[in-house]
Formats: sequence, structure tokens, C-alpha cells
Amino acid sequence: MMTTCSLDRIKEKIEAFSRFGDTGKGGVTRLSLTPEALAARSEFKRRMEAIDATVVSDDMANLYATIPGTEHLPAILSGSHLDSVRQGGNYDGVLGVIVAMEVVETIVKEGIPHRHPITVMVWTNEEGARFEPAMMSSGVVCGKFDKEEMLRSAAKDGTGITFGEALALSGFCGSVENRLSPLRHAAFVELHIEQGPVLEGDNHDIGVVEGVCGMINYEFTFTGQAGHAGTTPMRFRRDALYAAAKTIQYLHDEFDELDSRLVYTTGKISAHPNIHTVIPDEVKFTLDARHQNPEVIRQVLQIIRKIPREVERCQVSIQEAWSRKSVAFAPELAEYVEKSAQEHGYASMRLYSGPGHDAQYVADLMPTTMIFVPSANGHSHCELEFTPPEKCWQGANVLLSTLLKIDRLL
Amino acid sequence: MMTTCSLDRIKEKIEAFSRFGDTGKGGVTRLSLTPEALAARSEFKRRMEAIDATVVSDDMANLYATIPGTEHLPAILSGSHLDSVRQGGNYDGVLGVIVAMEVVETIVKEGIPHRHPITVMVWTNEEGARFEPAMMSSGVVCGKFDKEEMLRSAAKDGTGITFGEALALSGFCGSVENRLSPLRHAAFVELHIEQGPVLEGDNHDIGVVEGVCGMINYEFTFTGQAGHAGTTPMRFRRDALYAAAKTIQYLHDEFDELDSRLVYTTGKISAHPNIHTVIPDEVKFTLDARHQNPEVIRQVLQIIRKIPREVERCQVSIQEAWSRKSVAFAPELAEYVEKSAQEHGYASMRLYSGPGHDAQYVADLMPTTMIFVPSANGHSHCELEFTPPEKCWQGANVLLSTLLKIDRLL
Repeated sequence: MMTTCSLDRIKEKIEAFSRFGDTGKGGVTRLSLTPEALAARSEFKRRMEAIDATVVSDDMANLYATIPGTEHLPAILSGSHLDSVRQGGNYDGVLGVIVAMEVVETIVKEGIPHRHPITVMVWTNEEGARFEPAMMSSGVVCGKFDKEEMLRSAAKDGTGITFGEALALSGFCGSVENRLSPLRHAAFVELHIEQGPVLEGDNHDIGVVEGVCGMINYEFTFTGQAGHAGTTPMRFRRDALYAAAKTIQYLHDEFDELDSRLVYTTGKISAHPNIHTVIPDEVKFTLDARHQNPEVIRQVLQIIRKIPREVERCQVSIQEAWSRKSVAFAPELAEYVEKSAQEHGYASMRLYSGPGHDAQYVADLMPTTMIFVPSANGHSHCELEFTPPEKCWQGANVLLSTLLKIDRLL
Repeated sequence: MMTTCSLDRIKEKIEAFSRFGDTGKGGVTRLSLTPEALAARSEFKRRMEAIDATVVSDDMANLYATIPGTEHLPAILSGSHLDSVRQGGNYDGVLGVIVAMEVVETIVKEGIPHRHPITVMVWTNEEGARFEPAMMSSGVVCGKFDKEEMLRSAAKDGTGITFGEALALSGFCGSVENRLSPLRHAAFVELHIEQGPVLEGDNHDIGVVEGVCGMINYEFTFTGQAGHAGTTPMRFRRDALYAAAKTIQYLHDEFDELDSRLVYTTGKISAHPNIHTVIPDEVKFTLDARHQNPEVIRQVLQIIRKIPREVERCQVSIQEAWSRKSVAFAPELAEYVEKSAQEHGYASMRLYSGPGHDAQYVADLMPTTMIFVPSANGHSHCELEFTPPEKCWQGANVLLSTLLKIDRLL
């Protein structure tokens, strides 16, 4: 019989960490490097040291809690982040840390032999909810962002404090030598909630994450002519909202012909002057589109490029806000995850992550993958965020088996 | 040869009144009963008394400047309002007062005989920009609004002052006996800028206003389900913005089949939570539709009623914000205006007013009509508002002839 983690201990950990930044309404506000987030880190450190792990931090305050292996080998890493968005839930990020803690606790308590050291990680400022950008510290460690620039990132709460200042005051700032590195680390596995409805909808326990979707983000601006609602005949009008509505319809019509796994969202819209008796002269909306296959993203861009420079006599301007290439995780690690789920008798499915995660940056440095567990009703980034404890436990068991496979096979 | 007004005097009056509330950028901010608006009223009073008119005010501070006629008859009225919107122009309202002043000045200076007294009117708070609603005082005088309720209308600038308090402090509050009344007044003619591009576009000098369009104002609310842009497959989505965009398109498609004089506007839109990575769960937009013929407004309502209760799996709720029946002006007065324009050799066209005016309330009490002069590029309610002096002068000449026709024929 396979060793499994403890459901009770997982429940206790979820409960314990939910106190840091508790909103009193079922969720947490635990912005990066705030007292609430620092208290959660101290709790992590305390608990890991209690099972004889060695805890160090790097110069971005990322935490590494390591138990030794039987051989002199690079460590196998698992973890996620402890910060949340404002009024976020008790699962996004923190569950990946809790489950990795539980896996190591199980290995220690059950005396499960392993050749590699095993490290539980906490990434700093994944959400970007207090200091932009998101995935800041994995980005710095993996060479995506310039550290000096990140240190100057000002808090979005208007207090004027920078990330660098908050970092220096945190008490968790360590040495650059402790950074995650392919020389001292062999592989990274991040467990995370799906943040979407697919696993639950299809009655799957485990998501085998093959990679992170590429995405594009555009802002469309339509410029027309303001005019009085009561005096401007229709034939004279240049109505920017009508032009925008027509373009949203066009995007739906065209995108719906592409691969059904494409997701696209027009989430934000504004009109000027936004008065019920005035024809809008400027309307902006955003488009977010994601797919795992760069070819589909290319098709999306072709559809965008076909939009004429004038729609309904309004000028159209299209700006790329940002984009991200799709990231493929290590296929052998995905196989380990899939095989582990099978061995436990859990229903798994392969999928791509829509949201970004620290793991996508780590994937450039070493074999990396992710494990998803279901999100009830797909809720995330809100207090309704929930994953049943049994599903968290199943995720922990799959993570345990996966890490042990990596230890044996990689 | 017909007597005409003085172009120079009209220019001087436009210039003089443009100083009250001058924004320094080509327009005025002259909100009702502010010091700027009171200064304009004092100037009106001073100038009318200078040509021996008797100036009185009623209990809503509407001003009546009257020159006597040769017979004991009810007075013929002409006028408009002196208040403006914030950063409004030098023509909306004030031109109707200036032109009526100029007409009476011409009658006095040229000694033109007339049987009826002639009264130049200033309506209080037409714009509703400081105290809601618009057309407040004509509404009270003509029995549309409850006076006590209007006195309690709080200033929109957040100072807490009410219309009643501003009225009491104005120094212009007079007696209820002075109110416009069918017993003492025979007819009302209001000259106003068109506030739209039709006259200018068709090279017409004078608009013969047959009435005021009926209008409806609705707010549409679409309720869907929020979700993460990266994790919610399209088939699970209930995107409130897509539902709204589809409905805007439906309204255009259907309304464009109706009479081409119908004007309709979706001027205001909002999305919640309005974040580029979240599917909108609530979108609202407004619809304003206007037509002179109640049958066309009925067709508009039928089209609105055909909208299903669910669009793209989002619930649709439709609320009437307000509506107004179309108002027909006195056909004989419109004929006098048309004939006057012909006699002067001006190109005129018949049209309906889209915006509301004080005249629409007066029309319930006595024979009423309006004269429109062109608005350059259709601009109004902004500092770009402009009507060439010659067009103002032509309007004054038509008003003069019209009032004299009413004096002879009505």
C-alpha cells in the first residue's frame, strides 16, 4: 500500500494559515510583505524548523526549507506563494505551500527514504496586488525582470513605500547565493488550485498541467464624434460605442471559429463622456486571449489585424498592452504526475494553465511542472474560493508520489 | 421695405452677456442663481428698463420685461433662459433672450405700432445643471412640477444649498401673481439655437419648429457571472458585456428599419468589475430615443419589449428611467414663422426639436412655437457652441415679423 499524507494535518494547516489576514468573511487579505504576510512566513519557518528543515532566504526574500537526502545531489523543489489579492481566498498559492509542507512532513514522519534533498519554497509577491508586476520574485530569480527596477516598484496603495523598502524591513531578506539555481536544484513542482471550473465540471480530481497558455492583451480605442442625443440625425453620427459593440461582435464571431480551447475576454470598457444624452466620442475596451498553442494565438492576431481602420465612421486604434508566449512544462514530469494520479486511483486530465504562475518562469531553468486541484464553481481571487479538503489531500498524495518518482527516476 | 433689427446691436449684446461667467476659453459657466447668473439678470433688467420696459418677476424668479401696446390686450411673450451648463457656450438660451431684447428695442426705437403689450421673458433654471430637474421654473408655472418639491432640490455641487435657499437669496423672487398665465398672456415664441447639425448641413437659415420630439429613456442591465479570463472555457461563460454588445447591435438593426427621423443613443455604459482579466458579471447601458410621432415611439417600445429575458445566458432587466410625450406647437404660429422667413428671403425648413425647452411646457397654456437658428457643426453644451452673427440677426428679423403677425392676426 502506498504511503499517503494526513487529511487531518492538511485541514489543520489550511485552518492555521487562514488566520493570517482573515477578512472575517471567509477569505484573506494578505498582500505581499504586509504584517499579515510576514506572520504567515514566520509560521511557515517555525513549522518547517520543527521538522528539522533548514530554512534560508534569498535576496528577494524567497524562502527555502530543506530536508537533506541520502546522497549529495541537487534538491527537488515544491512550493508556491503565501501572498493573496485583496479579499482573496484560502487556497490560491497558500495551498501549494501547505501541501508541499505536508508532503515533507509525511516523508519525515514516515521515514520515507529519498536520495535528493527536498525543499519547500515560498515565492515572494506572486500576486502583484501590492507591488507590480505579478510573479515578481520568480521573475527576478529566473532572469525575466531587472532586480533594481523591481526594488523601485511603488506600492499601489498610495503610501509611497517601495518594494525595496518593504523587503529591507521584512526581516526575510537573505543572500543572493541562496537563489533557486539549476546547479543546486533539480526540478520544481508547484501544486495550485485550478482557478477555473473545468476539473470540477468534468469530475476530475487532478489536473496534469502541460504548460501555461500564451496570451495577448490588447486595448481597442474607437474615436467618433460627440453630439446631442436629441439633435444629431443618425446619418451624421460617429458613435464610438456602436463601433465598439460591432467590433466585440466581430471578435466573437471570428474567434468562435477557432479552436474551442481558446479563451478570450473583453473585461473592461469605458465610454466618454458617458452621459445618457450624448453620443460617445471615445470608447475603449480590452481584449485578453489565451491558448496553449502559439499557432492559435497567431490566428487570433490575424483576426485582430483584419479590423478596418474605420468602423462605423469611427477611427480604430489597437494597442498591444502586453503578451506572453506559451510555456511548455517538462513532459516527463507531467507523466510522473499522471502516473501518480493513476496509482492512487484518482481521475486526472491534462490541461494548460490559463493564469500565470511562478512555475512558468522556473520552467526556463529546470524541469518543471504543476499539479492542479479543482476549484469549487471555478471561483478564485475572491472569498468564495474553495477546494474540498479531500481534493487537497488527493493533490498532496499525488505531489508526494511525483516527488518520489523524480527522486528515483530523473 | 421691412424693418429689420440691428446686426451691430446683436453683436454687442452677445459680447456683453458672454462676460457673465466667462470661462476664458470661449464659453461660460453660468449656473442658475449663481453670482454670474444674477449679474446677467441685472444686466437684462438694466437694459430693458433703459428702453422703458417694466420689469417684474414671479415667485420662481422668472423675469418679465414688458412694453405696453396700444390696446388693452394680453401680452405677447418671447424669451428663453440665461443660465448655462458648466463650460457651456454663449448661445444656448441666452441668444433667445438677446434676440427678444433686440426685437423689443427695435420696436421701441423704430416706433413700430403694436396692439398687444410685448414681454421679454427670462426663465429660471432651464438647464438643471445646478439644481435638478431641467426646465424647473417653466415646469412649476405650467403645472408640471410641484413648487414645494422644487424648492427642496439640493445643489449638485455638494454645498447642501437648496434651490429654495438660492431663490430667496437671489433678490429676484417676486409675486405669484406675475406668473405667465393664459389670462394675461396671448402667445409665446422662443428663439433658440438648433443644437444640432441639420440646418447648417442643409444650408437653411431658419428652423420652423413644429413641436418637441417625444422621448423615452431606458436603462438596460445584463447580469452574468464573473470568472477568470484565463480559466473559464467559453462554453461556461455568462459574459454580460457580450450580451450588452449583442443587444446594442439588435437595437441598431431594428431601429434603423423605422422612420429615418428617429434618433436613438446608447450614451452611457458601465461594466462590473471592469478588470481586463475578469469576465464582466454586470453591464448597464442607457438608451435614449426620440421622435416627433408617438406612433414611432410606440414601435421603438415594441422593439425593446421583444428583447428576450435572457441574452447569451445573461439575465436582462429593462427599466424606464423617464419618458416625455411629444409636444405639438401651434400650427398657425409655425406658419407665421415660415411666412416671416419667406418674406425676408431666408431659407427655412420645418423640424421638431430633439432637446426639451421651456416652450414645450408653455404650449399647454397658450399658442406657442419656437424658431431655430443654425449651430455651427452642431456643437452645443460646450465652449465651441457658435452661431454666426448674421444668422442670429436673421433669427431676430424672423422673430420680429412673427411677433408683429401675432399682434395683427392672432
